[in-house]
Amino acid sequence: MIKTETITYDGPGGTYEGTISYDDSLDGPRPGILVSHAWMGQGSFETEQAEKLAGLGYVGFALDLYGKGVRANDKDKAAELMNTVASDHEALVSRLHYALELLKEHPLVDGDRTAAIGYCFGGKCVLDLARSGAATLGVVSFHGILNAPGVTGEPAINAKVLALHGWDDPMVPPEQVVAFNKEMTERGADWQLHAYGHTMHAFTNPEANDPDFGTVYQADADRRSWQAMENFFAEIFA
Amino acid sequence: MIKTETITYDGPGGTYEGTISYDDSLDGPRPGILVSHAWMGQGSFETEQAEKLAGLGYVGFALDLYGKGVRANDKDKAAELMNTVASDHEALVSRLHYALELLKEHPLVDGDRTAAIGYCFGGKCVLDLARSGAATLGVVSFHGILNAPGVTGEPAINAKVLALHGWDDPMVPPEQVVAFNKEMTERGADWQLHAYGHTMHAFTNPEANDPDFGTVYQADADRRSWQAMENFFAEIFA
Repeated sequence: MIKTETITYDGPGGTYEGTISYDDSLDGPRPGILVSHAWMGQGSFETEQAEKLAGLGYVGFALDLYGKGVRANDKDKAAELMNTVASDHEALVSRLHYALELLKEHPLVDGDRTAAIGYCFGGKCVLDLARSGAATLGVVSFHGILNAPGVTGEPAINAKVLALHGWDDPMVPPEQVVAFNKEMTERGADWQLHAYGHTMHAFTNPEANDPDFGTVYQADADRRSWQAMENFFAEIFA
Repeated sequence: MIKTETITYDGPGGTYEGTISYDDSLDGPRPGILVSHAWMGQGSFETEQAEKLAGLGYVGFALDLYGKGVRANDKDKAAELMNTVASDHEALVSRLHYALELLKEHPLVDGDRTAAIGYCFGGKCVLDLARSGAATLGVVSFHGILNAPGVTGEPAINAKVLALHGWDDPMVPPEQVVAFNKEMTERGADWQLHAYGHTMHAFTNPEANDPDFGTVYQADADRRSWQAMENFFAEIFA
């Protein structure tokens, strides 16, 4: 049976609240996966993804980068929260690393076998985690923002990188994709990018339905991207 | 047990010779897959792919677009043969359609469930097959040339399209990828493109080892692209 627990933790810059999900019918340590939230903040969507990961036999940790109780209810607030957190790259990365360490120390997690996935802003976050040289096996970005953070002197990228991208995403135009592929190549990362046709931003979220804004659920891309993630995990946790 | 038979057939413009592979321990009709050859012409590499497809439970047909006995032993001859065939787009497409019909009529093939895969030049061929509106469920291009054939008035694309691409392929630079994605989008195709980092042309061919020319085997991309093809088939033949 899948269990989900709320976890409140003190980390860099404050107190945070996320959820941890696992299958309590399984014994022993297993791979652990961070789930990095979209711009509204950690919520039911991210917890559901962590539960789906638990259903695959992993521990899913839907982390929090905004702080306990700090969530958005509309786009303006979401943009404000996201921009505030993203404006301090070092702080953002330290929160991600902290969550990764928490996950590794969880009694059900095999600390040598972790990965991170993220959605929209969370895609950017897990890519930044990889860019920072974090000791994790892989990161998967679902319709993530692909811009490089513009910092220098980062260590080598350890994590394998899988970016799952809707080609019609207005927030990630083709030139940003090309620049990302170039960046990953130059940094020596083991990277893949899957592009889906007729697919906008937020394609994994069944509630996304705003073509003018560029966020629309797309069932084919949702299914295909999840499958790609499963294949990727099978590879990195083999 | 996997059986491979040589098949000689009269088609548009001449006589052709390919191979057909299937598992003779399986009963009844099953999906059939065309395998469209690289620029050297139909040979052992393509037959092996057809045999691997047979191992997955399909009928694999390694077709011939050059003509019986017409094969290249070096790059100059390969380029000559390829350019000759590619220069007559209509003839090329008619040969592909003919092979598809042959496959559909094979007693072990369920004619409603076919697809086509191709390598290098063969990738271009199966994309052209899709572009021509062929009645097949899907096409998969492995390090195929992505340029549009530059013809107009083609019917709608029926086949789902999966392009598997090495980002460092010197024959298919990023601007060609972007143009392909745009073309597929404008034509309304159900398309995906997977890009692999640190991967050149011919990445599926264990004998490719010519970095100056841009053809190098890449084991990760080979494995990942085959997996992507398997997933794609699972979807279109569901």
